[in-house]
Amino acid sequence: MNLLKNKIVLLGAGNVASHLGITLKEKGFSIVQVYSQTLESAKELGEKLNAESINDLSWVNTMADIYILSIKDNALPEILEKLPLKEGLFVHTAGSIPLEIFKEYGFSRYGVFYPLQTFSKEKNISFSNIPIFVEANTNDDELLLEQLAFMLSGKVFRLSSEKRKYLHLAAVFACNFVNHMYANAADILEKEGLAAEYLSPLIEETALKIRDMHPKDAQTGPAVRYDTNVINKHLELLNNDFYKRSLYKLISESINKTSQE
Amino acid sequence: MNLLKNKIVLLGAGNVASHLGITLKEKGFSIVQVYSQTLESAKELGEKLNAESINDLSWVNTMADIYILSIKDNALPEILEKLPLKEGLFVHTAGSIPLEIFKEYGFSRYGVFYPLQTFSKEKNISFSNIPIFVEANTNDDELLLEQLAFMLSGKVFRLSSEKRKYLHLAAVFACNFVNHMYANAADILEKEGLAAEYLSPLIEETALKIRDMHPKDAQTGPAVRYDTNVINKHLELLNNDFYKRSLYKLISESINKTSQE
Repeated sequence: MNLLKNKIVLLGAGNVASHLGITLKEKGFSIVQVYSQTLESAKELGEKLNAESINDLSWVNTMADIYILSIKDNALPEILEKLPLKEGLFVHTAGSIPLEIFKEYGFSRYGVFYPLQTFSKEKNISFSNIPIFVEANTNDDELLLEQLAFMLSGKVFRLSSEKRKYLHLAAVFACNFVNHMYANAADILEKEGLAAEYLSPLIEETALKIRDMHPKDAQTGPAVRYDTNVINKHLELLNNDFYKRSLYKLISESINKTSQE
Repeated sequence: MNLLKNKIVLLGAGNVASHLGITLKEKGFSIVQVYSQTLESAKELGEKLNAESINDLSWVNTMADIYILSIKDNALPEILEKLPLKEGLFVHTAGSIPLEIFKEYGFSRYGVFYPLQTFSKEKNISFSNIPIFVEANTNDDELLLEQLAFMLSGKVFRLSSEKRKYLHLAAVFACNFVNHMYANAADILEKEGLAAEYLSPLIEETALKIRDMHPKDAQTGPAVRYDTNVINKHLELLNNDFYKRSLYKLISESINKTSQE
């Protein structure tokens, strides 16, 4: 079986769709079409992929083999409802949406292709190291998605929808919430005219440290020592910032509680 | 001036004291003595440094040149009170404690030597890339500390106590709070029998991404999209975990609020 013969339609033109589309093209796949609600977004990605760009679902190419839906979670049901065809293999890339959503809308071949990574259009990234989690409603299609994933990455796993939702939840903590801590730190420094770059070695060491130590054992700082002296001084510095102060209090309590478990 | 002629006494044997002591010794300095409240801790570090180990402040070597106090913030006042000598240069390594604490206890030469990094005894680390922030009550001693810092690191800055406390606060967000997010993520996965290592590429990319993008622009995930569908599903998964649920809610609100600024 030559996987590269599979013609792909990409529904979505956001961060995940862009990185996935570009990588699939680099690996030799034909992306025949890109759909996005706005023609401009569809074109922006479509041009990079040498693909037709559409913003109307009634124009979807019905001759493709794989339809990858990489759109906002809450937009997915509407798209599934409107899709004028049910032939081919339909795949979404969302961490939190169960496989069976496709069944509700009458699809017969469907799967999930979930790359566990944070994507921003502006930032290049190699797929080779990204864990990809696949699932499908038949063994044949699960195998197909697995092989497709292995063309992009050395780390491919089959995972049920039930487990995937916990993986996605954990990723929100490890990425989205972590990034928000970086944003708060940068904000604190910038308001004092200090360079956010001072934190880079600390940020990178904190991320790399947990390769060698469990994060519970790696915890340092005033909260885990429960140094109320420092904690109270920090809370005072944050007096006029409701969210930063509330975050500081709650996270410190939670660190302290975790360290006693 | 040969900096290496300075004899150093290390007061403290914790994470920072250990890494700093070992690095100073590697660079050729003589650490003549290590003090810790417990003799066992003093000996553990003292043996590595070929230094005398003591647990009684009345035995402190009065002939040293530099006394580095690297102890818990709330233990510092008591140690300063009890120190039987006021000669030499006294330096603490704490982010949140002002330079002037030494004045209150009658010291005449004093400074701060603050390496901005997370240290755990079990984890080796090179000082060469760590930003070190110095301050002293005289220009001469500030220069001395600056030169000493440059022997360990290529990144040395003079910084006032007033600014340093914000740097320390930012570091708590960027390191301690970040690590707690890693701990929560690992916990969620472990409870489902999933490998915490799945998250490593995501964690490392999240940390490296902000070299190229401001963290506000790098924010992804359900909170910044305000995808209440996903947010509510995640909150449901955390129903029985007070702290994780409260963190999820508050951090998501804060992300959403920040993205609208």
